[in-house]
Amino acid sequence: MERFSFGPDVAFAAGDERLDGVAIAPLSQSIFEGSRFQAAIFRVAPGGRIARHPATYPQILAVLDGSGEVSGGSGVAEPIVAGEAVFWSQGEEHETKTAAGLTALIVEGEGLQPFRRPA
Amino acid sequence: MERFSFGPDVAFAAGDERLDGVAIAPLSQSIFEGSRFQAAIFRVAPGGRIARHPATYPQILAVLDGSGEVSGGSGVAEPIVAGEAVFWSQGEEHETKTAAGLTALIVEGEGLQPFRRPA
Repeated sequence: MERFSFGPDVAFAAGDERLDGVAIAPLSQSIFEGSRFQAAIFRVAPGGRIARHPATYPQILAVLDGSGEVSGGSGVAEPIVAGEAVFWSQGEEHETKTAAGLTALIVEGEGLQPFRRPA
Repeated sequence: MERFSFGPDVAFAAGDERLDGVAIAPLSQSIFEGSRFQAAIFRVAPGGRIARHPATYPQILAVLDGSGEVSGGSGVAEPIVAGEAVFWSQGEEHETKTAAGLTALIVEGEGLQPFRRPA
């Protein structure tokens, strides 16, 4: 058993101009270090955003705290609150912004599929 | 963009006797449905537990809310609170229990490695 923290105290700003007011606390090894998928906690300050860009891999964003707005390929921003998640396809343009601030889990990786309730 | 909920209202009890007081809200498709990795929110009620069993895959448990106790291969229970995570190796015996209740993210999959801070 190996222990580590993902609290606000260990989160860091990535050197990425698309990330405005965003602190990241990784949970897993990064895809860029050879992992096939990655999970991280993103804390977005009030007024912050993850600016529009295409998804490198299929991606799930799950809002754990707070609220904001998300958009996908259509560009139409929709409100999102804690307890709600979105899935973006590989290559899909998407954006996340927040007036109040939010904390979200982001999971991404090749072949990722969202949970779909059995019909 | 596809939307879905992972709130308490959609969480369900898995038919697994090792899970006592546990409601699961999946985020991703399950490994048992062909996914290479899976992520889900586990809500453990006060007094509940995920009883001792070996990890099928390398696994990260990240406590999002509440507190509890975790143990790994050594069997020694250690306190854990929101903002802290543990990594268990494939095959490692482990247990999670909580007096106060907790909500945790569990991510698992072949080859999963935890985040390790650069030295």
